[in-house]
Amino acid sequence: MAAPEVRALLFDVFGTTVDWRSGVAREGALLGERLGIRNLDWGLVADAWRQRYQPAMEEVRSGRRPFVPLDTLHRENLAAVFRDMSLPALSEEDLDEFALAWHRLDPWPDVVEGLTRLRQRYILAPHSNGNVALLVDMAKRAGLPWDLVLGAEVVRHYKPRPESYESACEMLALPPHQVMLVAAHHADLTAARAACGMRTAFIPRPFEHGVERPRNAANEATHDLVALDFCDLASQLGC
Amino acid sequence: MAAPEVRALLFDVFGTTVDWRSGVAREGALLGERLGIRNLDWGLVADAWRQRYQPAMEEVRSGRRPFVPLDTLHRENLAAVFRDMSLPALSEEDLDEFALAWHRLDPWPDVVEGLTRLRQRYILAPHSNGNVALLVDMAKRAGLPWDLVLGAEVVRHYKPRPESYESACEMLALPPHQVMLVAAHHADLTAARAACGMRTAFIPRPFEHGVERPRNAANEATHDLVALDFCDLASQLGC
Repeated sequence: MAAPEVRALLFDVFGTTVDWRSGVAREGALLGERLGIRNLDWGLVADAWRQRYQPAMEEVRSGRRPFVPLDTLHRENLAAVFRDMSLPALSEEDLDEFALAWHRLDPWPDVVEGLTRLRQRYILAPHSNGNVALLVDMAKRAGLPWDLVLGAEVVRHYKPRPESYESACEMLALPPHQVMLVAAHHADLTAARAACGMRTAFIPRPFEHGVERPRNAANEATHDLVALDFCDLASQLGC
Repeated sequence: MAAPEVRALLFDVFGTTVDWRSGVAREGALLGERLGIRNLDWGLVADAWRQRYQPAMEEVRSGRRPFVPLDTLHRENLAAVFRDMSLPALSEEDLDEFALAWHRLDPWPDVVEGLTRLRQRYILAPHSNGNVALLVDMAKRAGLPWDLVLGAEVVRHYKPRPESYESACEMLALPPHQVMLVAAHHADLTAARAACGMRTAFIPRPFEHGVERPRNAANEATHDLVALDFCDLASQLGC
């Protein structure tokens, strides 16, 4: 057990907790079937949609745009992806509906068991750029046993802005060394540590971008913990 | 079922969900035993402490004082109560510890069963003037199955400021008529309705101020629902 004083575990969500690519592709295929869009690889739509994620948030992080919740960015980006890919424009209703595909993503297979074990000993919360309604819908649907929901909308700052990590610890009334961020992305973990000295746990999720494109998920050896998945994390933390 | 479109239930906490008076008195008695304070009715300490609650928040609501979390107000008020009652001044450590008695309150006997039933169908959150850490500690200790934690610290406005109700609905991404506040206090419910048209459910908690002082908890007949307790609320809402 690498961090005996840790009291709360914060989890990155997209990629770390849920498999966004296959979830978005599944929702897209349902839409395509209904609209008669054929021979489209919806995994590529998911990729294109996700590629617009960081640039859209960067507008907010930089202060060029006031804070808006991720649902809003997702909806704008979806319309742009359909234009870019020369797909038929979606109706307002279909945009509304498909933009919320991110509320209906499935967790990786180890997640519910791992969180359920960890919850006995730790305070658990998502710390995501997803908005509160998105995270609550996702948790209700998938049975994710969070104690509370944190993240961009609560603190009104997108990761990896330092304020996003600092405010989360402040709201938990815990010193940052008692809070551990769990993520599949080095940049997120590194930012949490740099912002305020949070503890970090790296979970490789080699198939975040699809089973055909496994990621080299080597640990950069700068984190407090490396675990294979959430169940392994629970075991390493004595749960 | 009085409100078929309701999707989320927000709960007042002190008095409605937990029995603050006997919990604070119990924690006080433990402290008194340790410090050798005898022949003190700790229920009266709880009452005096609680009496300073609204005036302290009013400093923040009025804008005369910037937002501070309730733990801070509780600690200041506790020191004042000990002065007012001519009790021996507490050490800094004892003030720190006893001020957090509000994190360790027990729910009324119907609460865990009622919430567990309601959670199958509704999004559940405390919407309290308690700070996030307080509400999380309380929920972990008592097994309150919230989906998320809302309240004063998240929105940085104390009830009954209209912003406190409006921001909670905004964060849930629900129109206020799909959100119901559950409380034992008419003023809270009336403010929620006036602020933005939230639905309201009144739960009489006749013994909030002690079994010796039952409150006339008559419904003022202006609420969407009146339920005897959280289990009755679950039954009335079809859970």
